[in-house]
Amino acid sequence: MIQRNLEICFTPAAFDAHADSEAVVVVIDVLRATSSICAAFASGVREIIPVATVEEARAMKEQGYLLAAERDGYVLDFADFGNSPFNFSADRVNGKSVAYSTTNGTGIMKQAAECHDVVIGSYLNMSALCSWIIDQQRKVVIVCAGWKRRFSLEDAVCAGAMAERLMESGRFTTICDSVHAATDLWGAAKNDLMGYIEKAAQRSRLRDKGLDDCIGYCHTFDVTDVIPVLREGRLVAL
Amino acid sequence: MIQRNLEICFTPAAFDAHADSEAVVVVIDVLRATSSICAAFASGVREIIPVATVEEARAMKEQGYLLAAERDGYVLDFADFGNSPFNFSADRVNGKSVAYSTTNGTGIMKQAAECHDVVIGSYLNMSALCSWIIDQQRKVVIVCAGWKRRFSLEDAVCAGAMAERLMESGRFTTICDSVHAATDLWGAAKNDLMGYIEKAAQRSRLRDKGLDDCIGYCHTFDVTDVIPVLREGRLVAL
Repeated sequence: MIQRNLEICFTPAAFDAHADSEAVVVVIDVLRATSSICAAFASGVREIIPVATVEEARAMKEQGYLLAAERDGYVLDFADFGNSPFNFSADRVNGKSVAYSTTNGTGIMKQAAECHDVVIGSYLNMSALCSWIIDQQRKVVIVCAGWKRRFSLEDAVCAGAMAERLMESGRFTTICDSVHAATDLWGAAKNDLMGYIEKAAQRSRLRDKGLDDCIGYCHTFDVTDVIPVLREGRLVAL
Repeated sequence: MIQRNLEICFTPAAFDAHADSEAVVVVIDVLRATSSICAAFASGVREIIPVATVEEARAMKEQGYLLAAERDGYVLDFADFGNSPFNFSADRVNGKSVAYSTTNGTGIMKQAAECHDVVIGSYLNMSALCSWIIDQQRKVVIVCAGWKRRFSLEDAVCAGAMAERLMESGRFTTICDSVHAATDLWGAAKNDLMGYIEKAAQRSRLRDKGLDDCIGYCHTFDVTDVIPVLREGRLVAL
């Protein structure tokens, strides 16, 4: 058995140093984009079209798409709803195409689009995603969406949880320091995950905006088996 | 007393997100650039001129400067010596001007030059540097030189050791997730620092090249009180 290389990239700013056309890229934005995308597919959304800019988001709305779009936690005024996983309920999104634009999560999907596969990771689909990744027999780069090109604690901890599982499978090796760091951060966090996440700046930002009702949900393992994957610029369920 | 903001930037790739013309920037490259710079000043070097490119390094040598220069651990063939702290002995550098170019450490100094002050940090000058930083009453950004735009474990751990001291002074506050992460990594490492650093990719690289005689020295606290600071493109002792 050939062991594949596992890497973690803590910020989209450093993605070029990790990019590899043969790799599977896992995008993580725990609070809240990739948790919300998993929730949307659990609610039966047909496809999600990530759009990077506000201008693109407006154009998608004008073309008749349902639009989920926020910046810094605030819903764009022309959008149908924002970036909470609770917005993507079955009555709203089941069977629909949704255009989606967020502060940090959607940009990195476009950046990674040239890699072999781009999949969406969160606690919500952790077990199903890890099983699928192990079967791919490819190099894996877990990318943390972070916050405005900075490191985000909640994304690093989730990446560490995923890395621990992948390394325990025996199918991966690593020479990437971020994997060791993220695994140790997960180790520090896992016995009191909600308590640990209190330190995260994004935790405070969401509290300040009254948007923190979803924190517990976004840190819940295995709510769904869905694996959203990018195909020709659109996220669909594998 | 006004608390100042403390930030850590884990990779030069993300420095733009942290740059601030009013901030003191601390550059850390434990293995080996900033440890070697501290060792050089402890040996009485008059000034060190960081040069980013191989071409600039060659030009400095042709102008008659003593040249310390490496790429990926190997001494450039036209340089006088490389990047080990043991190269910067008093008999070689005392009273001299040295041009200096390394894979990761010198580029970020140029990148940060527009900030209020750029100082050189390592375990070797930790206590003296922390005391000076606390007196500045300015925002502080600790930048890890990393490795080819990636995260480096040994730099993050050293940044965490520094952050712990600065936060304990009561003079700083932080909303930067990297500060929490680095402090927790330092917490995981500090009871067996040499054992922990075994995980670092740069530890393996230096071993593979037979350059790891300096690992213990580079992780020794308070060998010197010197604080190298960038002044008009040259590092001098404060």
